Amino acid sequence: MIDAIKARLYVTDALGAGGSVMLADDQAHYLRHVLRLEAGQAVALFNGRDGEWRAVIAETGKKGVRLDLAAQLRPQPAAAADIWLCFAPIKQGRIEMIVEKATELGTARLLLVITRRTQMQKVNVERLAAHAREAAEQCERLDVPEVAQAVTLEKLLQDWPQDRRLFVCAERSDAPSLLAAARGDGPCALLVGPEGGFAPEELQQIAILPQVVTVSLGPRILRAETAAIAALAILQSVRLN
Amino acid sequence: MIDAIKARLYVTDALGAGGSVMLADDQAHYLRHVLRLEAGQAVALFNGRDGEWRAVIAETGKKGVRLDLAAQLRPQPAAAADIWLCFAPIKQGRIEMIVEKATELGTARLLLVITRRTQMQKVNVERLAAHAREAAEQCERLDVPEVAQAVTLEKLLQDWPQDRRLFVCAERSDAPSLLAAARGDGPCALLVGPEGGFAPEELQQIAILPQVVTVSLGPRILRAETAAIAALAILQSVRLN
Repeated sequence: MIDAIKARLYVTDALGAGGSVMLADDQAHYLRHVLRLEAGQAVALFNGRDGEWRAVIAETGKKGVRLDLAAQLRPQPAAAADIWLCFAPIKQGRIEMIVEKATELGTARLLLVITRRTQMQKVNVERLAAHAREAAEQCERLDVPEVAQAVTLEKLLQDWPQDRRLFVCAERSDAPSLLAAARGDGPCALLVGPEGGFAPEELQQIAILPQVVTVSLGPRILRAETAAIAALAILQSVRLN
Repeated sequence: MIDAIKARLYVTDALGAGGSVMLADDQAHYLRHVLRLEAGQAVALFNGRDGEWRAVIAETGKKGVRLDLAAQLRPQPAAAADIWLCFAPIKQGRIEMIVEKATELGTARLLLVITRRTQMQKVNVERLAAHAREAAEQCERLDVPEVAQAVTLEKLLQDWPQDRRLFVCAERSDAPSLLAAARGDGPCALLVGPEGGFAPEELQQIAILPQVVTVSLGPRILRAETAAIAALAILQSVRLN
């Protein structure tokens, strides 16, 4: 009889038949002391490259937990639509919501952008990256979105990749809907401002970038995190169809 | 000089030129002791029927706060697309997220549905209704979605209105995407299951209802609240275009 999978963990090691993985620190602690797993019990591992593997706990000791790779459960799926989310940091509780939901919705990369009206100037990127990893472990995603270091809006626009379309969500404008504007393929990204939106001079800076398409999310004012989640849901849906 | 609007409040009274509104209890407390407003300062009032009104504090006393209606700020907008959300109660923190985001996204009515796999059998509907009211006050919506008493899935299906299409989000099925299925107009609703989805016999009960259209939200497994928010965003977007 095959034991049920007790947890899903993201690791950086290569995963392949006959291999082993050594977990240390947090992940070992989580398996041993939070889930109270013992030798012989199974978890699932993924690394964003080699699919999902069934791994059986072989040894738990001071050095950590050794897992033997038993079998591949799922091959690595084709990458989802290549979508980035650029967003201004917002207050605690709500920024984690963006990271968690963006991860579930398959976003490839999360970029923190400091704008004029951004209230939260200090961002703990490591903590948000850990949050993205946990969200990936909990949904059935087989990779983890990268969380990039925070940059200013100016720097973001200056370095923007030539081939990546940038959809900018504007409030109450006569802009076309994201639904209509999003059709097509190729790399793309969303840019969502902070509470209070972008400053007028920022909107001008944004508008001159040729990759930018200004879009509307409808007649209502949405909170920053709602705008980010709603826009990602629409974009993912259009790009997958 | 006209004072800035200090708050937005939902009231049940009629709103019209020359009228007054008496606030008691929570709302009076909020204006006097949380925001520390005084006579002469202004707030905005809405009731879901008469648009948004500028109201000036005339008197604060033991009986409450009396506000005089000064001028209409916005007429009542045409109702948004007539969309209901039916969802199984989930744990605290996440259920409020559904109520808040559904309100921001313009949902007309929220219906709590008890299914086989619903973990949270007890739901404080009053508390969720208060949460919807606060969410409406904070976004610029001019009405408040009704939060209906919880019913069993069986009862929901039995009493389902003949003219209202019901989109049911299924996990990993070969169902058409919501994006493709949602086109059209007329009243509609979304049904989102609890964590763990619907039981097989429930799926059978659902499928025989002629108003039902089973749809997919894409290849990933979404948490219940993510599915609800993403599906509403897509549906609203399709129905408004």
